Amino acid sequence: MRFVKMHGLGNDFVVVDGRKEQLPEDLSELSRRVCDRHFGVGADGLVFIMPSDKADVRMRIFNPDGSEAEMCGNAIRCVAKYLYEKNIIPKEKIEIETLAGVMVPEIIKKNGEITGVRVDMGEPVLEPRQIPMEDKGPGPVVGRILSVKGREFSITAVSMGNPHCVIFVPEVDKVPLKEWGPELETHPVFPRRTNVEFVEVLNRREVRMRVWERGAGETLACGTGACATVVASVLNDRTDREVTVHLQGGDLQIYWSPEDNRVYMTGPAVDVFEGRLLI
Amino acid sequence: MRFVKMHGLGNDFVVVDGRKEQLPEDLSELSRRVCDRHFGVGADGLVFIMPSDKADVRMRIFNPDGSEAEMCGNAIRCVAKYLYEKNIIPKEKIEIETLAGVMVPEIIKKNGEITGVRVDMGEPVLEPRQIPMEDKGPGPVVGRILSVKGREFSITAVSMGNPHCVIFVPEVDKVPLKEWGPELETHPVFPRRTNVEFVEVLNRREVRMRVWERGAGETLACGTGACATVVASVLNDRTDREVTVHLQGGDLQIYWSPEDNRVYMTGPAVDVFEGRLLI
Repeated sequence: MRFVKMHGLGNDFVVVDGRKEQLPEDLSELSRRVCDRHFGVGADGLVFIMPSDKADVRMRIFNPDGSEAEMCGNAIRCVAKYLYEKNIIPKEKIEIETLAGVMVPEIIKKNGEITGVRVDMGEPVLEPRQIPMEDKGPGPVVGRILSVKGREFSITAVSMGNPHCVIFVPEVDKVPLKEWGPELETHPVFPRRTNVEFVEVLNRREVRMRVWERGAGETLACGTGACATVVASVLNDRTDREVTVHLQGGDLQIYWSPEDNRVYMTGPAVDVFEGRLLI
Repeated sequence: MRFVKMHGLGNDFVVVDGRKEQLPEDLSELSRRVCDRHFGVGADGLVFIMPSDKADVRMRIFNPDGSEAEMCGNAIRCVAKYLYEKNIIPKEKIEIETLAGVMVPEIIKKNGEITGVRVDMGEPVLEPRQIPMEDKGPGPVVGRILSVKGREFSITAVSMGNPHCVIFVPEVDKVPLKEWGPELETHPVFPRRTNVEFVEVLNRREVRMRVWERGAGETLACGTGACATVVASVLNDRTDREVTVHLQGGDLQIYWSPEDNRVYMTGPAVDVFEGRLLI
């Protein structure tokens, strides 16, 4: 089985063209085997490009534990770049069917070179019950004080399909993330727990962010977390609507459009190596 | 740059034929980049096969931090299998120059199929000062009581080029390795710290082992630890001299020869995929 190994901000994927390669029946078992970082290829996910009757292609993505994921912003950037660069789908806007609906990633070029891929991440959800977050007051939770073990945090709550709790700090490097992250993740006001973003505003078009992902701990990058961060930054009037978010794994450009209320994320996709599986 | 990804008991390597591929000047930098598990290929080491005027080939092995290692038992099995299987060195005993001297791994076959690779791991060192271990008594440390935080361990100390502290237990699965491992690793009687092996004897030809590696914590497998375990098992009259050691990552066959006092380790080497680096 031939594959390409790619990553978006260090979130890495084995990409297989399932229309050309002969696949085994049990894709979950294959994913567990391939994603293993010592006995297999090693990846955060195994991605198949499949035929679709609704879109240009269909993307299926499996986690290292064998479960199937609905969608992944970093993976879909990789798939779009692969399809465009290999001239498989020679269009700058590629329609990709996922379990979360048809997505339309767009190839971004500068002087003829691909600089990134833009993905429509949808509209932010601010209504507390839909985040979900327990809150008495009406309207969005913006700069609300939350007390955690005697420490007071000013939080802004945003859902991008998953819950985020955004907190502005003077210096992200000084945040004791392993201590504060789990305390906020499991705070009772978030009945389904939450992702936590600590954000340092550099200027109106640039922020630095560290993320504590729900169930995963600190990670190199989180696409929905970067989107939630920019929505929170605009709501707190700390940045404009078009912002570069610096993450541990690299940079994302986020744009919260005033026209359609949707959040657009532009980020890199990198080909690392191509391979042929022998096991 | 073309490569093969291989592993021995989950200890995994990117193997490059440096006589065929064009290598950059800075191999340390290449190793850091290639071994990275998210942005690179991902491996415990980057291995180059180079020309030699002393042996069939020379092996150079670089760690993920860019430093060069002297030798690695798991890596040399992979290199030997690669050279034999690809018909590059069509001999069952292959001479490989390393920074620890010329090693002679031997291809083991059953019914024409490669079942493993045997490596001469040298003679065990039992003299306490050479391990090094602080001990007043003369002769080897076999079944000596060591008190750690009020708990008494019966230890046997063996060096296989690196220090090992072997402890027999009724059930390895019940050992709180994360607690006991570092306590023994850093015990003052081991001036350069020590690797720690907990061993459950199944019968005279079979043991189970869990290892706490100095500076690394619990790992899937440790070749020198398996060798030290069998030496300790023989010295305590718990096993014969030819023993299968079951590790988390798989099995090793260890033989402590009474003829030449050397320890021979036979273990697997698996090709996982072949690839071509694009970064």
